Amino acid sequence: MKHFAEELEELRNRLLEMAGLVESAVYRSVAAVVEKDAEQAHQVLKNEARINQMEIENDELTTRLLATQQPMAADMRFLTAALKINNDLERMGDLAVTIVERGLALMKEPVISPAIDIPRMAKLTESMIRRSLDAFVRSDAEMARSVLLADDAVDNLRDAIYDELIEYMQQAPENVRPGVNLMFVTRNLERLADHSTNIAEDVLFLVQGVDVRHHAEVRN
Amino acid sequence: MKHFAEELEELRNRLLEMAGLVESAVYRSVAAVVEKDAEQAHQVLKNEARINQMEIENDELTTRLLATQQPMAADMRFLTAALKINNDLERMGDLAVTIVERGLALMKEPVISPAIDIPRMAKLTESMIRRSLDAFVRSDAEMARSVLLADDAVDNLRDAIYDELIEYMQQAPENVRPGVNLMFVTRNLERLADHSTNIAEDVLFLVQGVDVRHHAEVRN
Repeated sequence: MKHFAEELEELRNRLLEMAGLVESAVYRSVAAVVEKDAEQAHQVLKNEARINQMEIENDELTTRLLATQQPMAADMRFLTAALKINNDLERMGDLAVTIVERGLALMKEPVISPAIDIPRMAKLTESMIRRSLDAFVRSDAEMARSVLLADDAVDNLRDAIYDELIEYMQQAPENVRPGVNLMFVTRNLERLADHSTNIAEDVLFLVQGVDVRHHAEVRN
Repeated sequence: MKHFAEELEELRNRLLEMAGLVESAVYRSVAAVVEKDAEQAHQVLKNEARINQMEIENDELTTRLLATQQPMAADMRFLTAALKINNDLERMGDLAVTIVERGLALMKEPVISPAIDIPRMAKLTESMIRRSLDAFVRSDAEMARSVLLADDAVDNLRDAIYDELIEYMQQAPENVRPGVNLMFVTRNLERLADHSTNIAEDVLFLVQGVDVRHHAEVRN
């Protein structure tokens, strides 16, 4: 039987591997929308099952360790954070798939997409994802806080994009369908950013033992 | 110190109380949209903090029981399911708030809403929520399965509503903004139905010890 420390290390490595798959899925899903890249789109759909399978396995490993090892405070916090991060990663994988589906729908549209700031929002969201996962790997509270601070910028960009998209849809009936697809892409990027925020909050809980969920004031 | 059985019972009761709050929030959020009922809308916003607080407390109680009691197989399954259901309920509360925000935006629109089947989709979703929670209370696998079966009907309704809404938005520029709001309401109802499906899957795991996540074939 493995030692507890080895099993914790295995769990950490498994979460990192899953994080890598999710980061890559998000990057590709954005390419599917912005560059109309069908090859990248299909890669995301192909990798979805692997991410889902990892979530189930990580859940089993984590709850087994929680239940059989009587972990002390710091390990207990790590295992609790692992459960949540595992769940966030799986949902982020689902969001990448949803973005891909919108991307594939947009590829069928003959209409030229408007000059909307979706690439900029995507870059910002990808950076939040990367930093939240780096913060987890390095137990870096400062980096986790930087993710929480970026969330407002994403929300502002989202509002600007929504306004532009509504105007675009109002200009011509044939703009409505692609506009709706881009609106859902924007919404899903925002949700990806929210999941990064969740992960950053879990990292702060892990490092400092403070639960910052639902306490907006800590973000200032 | 309380006995383990008493603490499990307390956790079950706390989840039921939270489920009651969430059911009521969803019901009221739909009234905010369909009947333009501002009073119901504000009740949902008022109750959000309570649901969020319950999630944190239930999480703490569950992980403490997992870590300190060395639970046997059946209790272990209950605690694992409790963690997930707690998380689903909190997210359902958030979705009710999002629906309310769309409802409040729609109240400001002078445009008459189209005759869209949102009330029917809302009724179906509410019934899925109620049955998934009843299935949890009674450990009723048959009822849990009936929730999984209803999910296809919700998806079909969603597709029909999307088509109607796109047509409505294409008819006149002033329809675009209310159409977008109703589109997001529809999407959030679908996500509420998805969370009910998650809970039903957790109940099957609890009752039968089988993990049915990500296995679409079990739904047939």
